[in-house]
Amino acid sequence: MTTEEDADLDAVVAGVRERVDPAPEERERLTEAVDALTERVQEALADHDVTADVVQVGSTARGTWLAGDRDIDLFVRFPDELPREDLERLGLVVGRQVLPDGHEEFAEHPYVKGEFEGFDVDLVPCYDVPAATDIRSAVDRTPFHNAYLLDRLDDDLAGDVRVFKRFLKGIGVYGSDLRTKGFSGYLSELLVLEYGGFEPLLRAAADWQPPVEHDPEDHGTRTFDDPLVVVDPTDPERNVAAVLSADNVARLQHYARDLLADPREELFFPPERDRLSAEELEGHLDRRGTLPLAVAFDAPDVVEDQLYPQLEKSLHGVVAELDRRGFEPLRAASFASEGEDQPFDRAVLFVEVAIAELPKIQRHNGPPVHVRQHATGFYETYADSDVYGPFVDGDRYVVERDREFTTPESLLESDALFDVALGAQVKQQLKAEYEVLVGDDVVALTERFGVELRDYFDPTP
Amino acid sequence: MTTEEDADLDAVVAGVRERVDPAPEERERLTEAVDALTERVQEALADHDVTADVVQVGSTARGTWLAGDRDIDLFVRFPDELPREDLERLGLVVGRQVLPDGHEEFAEHPYVKGEFEGFDVDLVPCYDVPAATDIRSAVDRTPFHNAYLLDRLDDDLAGDVRVFKRFLKGIGVYGSDLRTKGFSGYLSELLVLEYGGFEPLLRAAADWQPPVEHDPEDHGTRTFDDPLVVVDPTDPERNVAAVLSADNVARLQHYARDLLADPREELFFPPERDRLSAEELEGHLDRRGTLPLAVAFDAPDVVEDQLYPQLEKSLHGVVAELDRRGFEPLRAASFASEGEDQPFDRAVLFVEVAIAELPKIQRHNGPPVHVRQHATGFYETYADSDVYGPFVDGDRYVVERDREFTTPESLLESDALFDVALGAQVKQQLKAEYEVLVGDDVVALTERFGVELRDYFDPTP
Repeated sequence: MTTEEDADLDAVVAGVRERVDPAPEERERLTEAVDALTERVQEALADHDVTADVVQVGSTARGTWLAGDRDIDLFVRFPDELPREDLERLGLVVGRQVLPDGHEEFAEHPYVKGEFEGFDVDLVPCYDVPAATDIRSAVDRTPFHNAYLLDRLDDDLAGDVRVFKRFLKGIGVYGSDLRTKGFSGYLSELLVLEYGGFEPLLRAAADWQPPVEHDPEDHGTRTFDDPLVVVDPTDPERNVAAVLSADNVARLQHYARDLLADPREELFFPPERDRLSAEELEGHLDRRGTLPLAVAFDAPDVVEDQLYPQLEKSLHGVVAELDRRGFEPLRAASFASEGEDQPFDRAVLFVEVAIAELPKIQRHNGPPVHVRQHATGFYETYADSDVYGPFVDGDRYVVERDREFTTPESLLESDALFDVALGAQVKQQLKAEYEVLVGDDVVALTERFGVELRDYFDPTP
Repeated sequence: MTTEEDADLDAVVAGVRERVDPAPEERERLTEAVDALTERVQEALADHDVTADVVQVGSTARGTWLAGDRDIDLFVRFPDELPREDLERLGLVVGRQVLPDGHEEFAEHPYVKGEFEGFDVDLVPCYDVPAATDIRSAVDRTPFHNAYLLDRLDDDLAGDVRVFKRFLKGIGVYGSDLRTKGFSGYLSELLVLEYGGFEPLLRAAADWQPPVEHDPEDHGTRTFDDPLVVVDPTDPERNVAAVLSADNVARLQHYARDLLADPREELFFPPERDRLSAEELEGHLDRRGTLPLAVAFDAPDVVEDQLYPQLEKSLHGVVAELDRRGFEPLRAASFASEGEDQPFDRAVLFVEVAIAELPKIQRHNGPPVHVRQHATGFYETYADSDVYGPFVDGDRYVVERDREFTTPESLLESDALFDVALGAQVKQQLKAEYEVLVGDDVVALTERFGVELRDYFDPTP
């Protein structure tokens, strides 16, 4: 890396910071909103006979949010001895009082989400436990994360966190939701802290040899089977990067090298990709010579973190069965379109196979002829049936008998689909209704899933 | 096995013996012919200044030939000290004198083959060595085999040898030539001797658990990796069943059980099978839904024992390459038709594949992204080329790039055919000329190879 390239990277980072650093007015408005909300919560609490404090958490609490993000996370910490029913009830009562136009959402317990002076506010009840290892629900851990980072992130590092998070967003690996399986905000901040800034983190990531292990507090008590391990500074048993996929580690490595070799803001702010058109899809099918198949159905009424693991499991089940039946899946993906009355509308298991048709017969190996009882049983089973053989090959009997499914669509259209491992609610939906699209029929999917199909047929690292 | 079934088997064996035991007149004519030939050989030897004796060997020497077989094998044993050139020269001179209308053939050295009073006579020169372990050429061993069996086979056992040989012929596993890889005459006789008759041999074979090992003289000095081992009573280093294939061991086991369960002469004298007609072949192709392919070429001018190993090697090479390229060979066979001016005329490598067409692209896995130098090299190789990707899958780069052969016939029609392991002279012939038949075109093969195609498409154990 020459000095000139260093200068290029510095200039790019400076350019990115200009776009992601919140302006003073934005910070001011945020502080005012948080103060007003905190006061409202305390007033609401005063109406009920309970002591609790209010903690602001999340990126807006630590100055690591990206300009324009408008999320305020306020946690109301109730005493440890409060029964869970009371915590849930009081959490909602206070939430509704503070955000009268808000609505309930559900994580490990219910909380209230609403708008306040242009900000999206989460008002979450949690327990005030002595340490992160004593938590009663996952949300209890958040204030500890918050405190740990607040103590360590100065303005410089907070700025680098914003650059790193923008980079992760740009390359598509930001977010610990179960669809993305990327880097959470907390993980991003710990990594910047661990490496002392964006650029050293970038250079290190370019050279990572997974498994890469960090234990900032040097207190880890177990081993993890993950490509990246960052032991939670507030919990020695927990890998902060547990959700992160190997793919996304590799992607960060790829783009870190790319950015170092050719620094450019475009990697932080990639242009939106066009939807794949029907004509483009047809062109790809022609160019590839594969057979695409799609199982399309109404998405179950569940949130993203429930839907995507089920789609993934179902897709894996379908791919494994197509493989076992000899159709050689080449690549596969699942899609879901946003719904109006429920989170998702229509879902698709999309598989491209190499083999469009198999022979009517298939080889079936019998036992070695010398295993007399077993062999005689096999021979007698097939001797008078409509198969080729039994004949001898090596030391075994062999027959060529009818194959159950000669095309992949006949498999997908049969009840055999329900014998594969499917997500529970996906299975329910499929049992009610589904459609199999084959070959050029999949062109119809470009209407709903043009963006996803662009990613599939014009894949980037 | 009930007494009734025993009686059935006895009756079948008696019926077979009636058909395979040579009549007294046949025995008499044979003895006369052998005597006359022996006298002629001795007269011829007298013209040359060398002492040698004449030994009758083979099944006609031991009374184990099947009625109607007309082979007389006479070995002329020359002194051990005679130079090889002299043995070869004298062997031919004597041979031509005794059989003036005969012709030369070649085993390990030349000998004369001719007709005499309706018998096919082999007149073979060999060395008179002190023991079978001192032989200078394979033919020197034969007189020792002959002496060993003559000492031990009485008329009863000789009769059982005839029945066993007829059984082996009936089920298609008789002959140690490299096409059949079956039971030699010598092996058949040793087995009948070892088990004390046809029926005990049959019952034992039905229960064999290969590897089955016999060492009649209990003098074996090495181990063998063969399904059946019979240590040569005249040579502790040699397995008489070395050529026998696992398939043929299994076939003997199958048909031994079949004969015991349902004794019938038909197994000894099966009806000749009809040639497969063009219509029948088309019916099979339709029923099977496979793609048949044939590489047809002029057979090299070599004898059976040279041709078949080369065809087998070539077929194996072609099948392995079709498999490696993703076309999933289902079954394969090689055929050769008899020639007029040379042993064989036209030869065919016949392969049935499950996959008639593959996509234009194929997946190609690159290195793990974290192996930086290697991974960067891979990425740069493909980044600007006409492939899908590189994209990340798991921890690796992957591309989907053009497949070289999308149909099996395009592979067989290309020079890639010459990169597979082929028999040397088969390769020469293919380089000069060959034809690829695909799909229904193979119907043309029924003209020359109707019998072989019957065995292929109506396979028996």
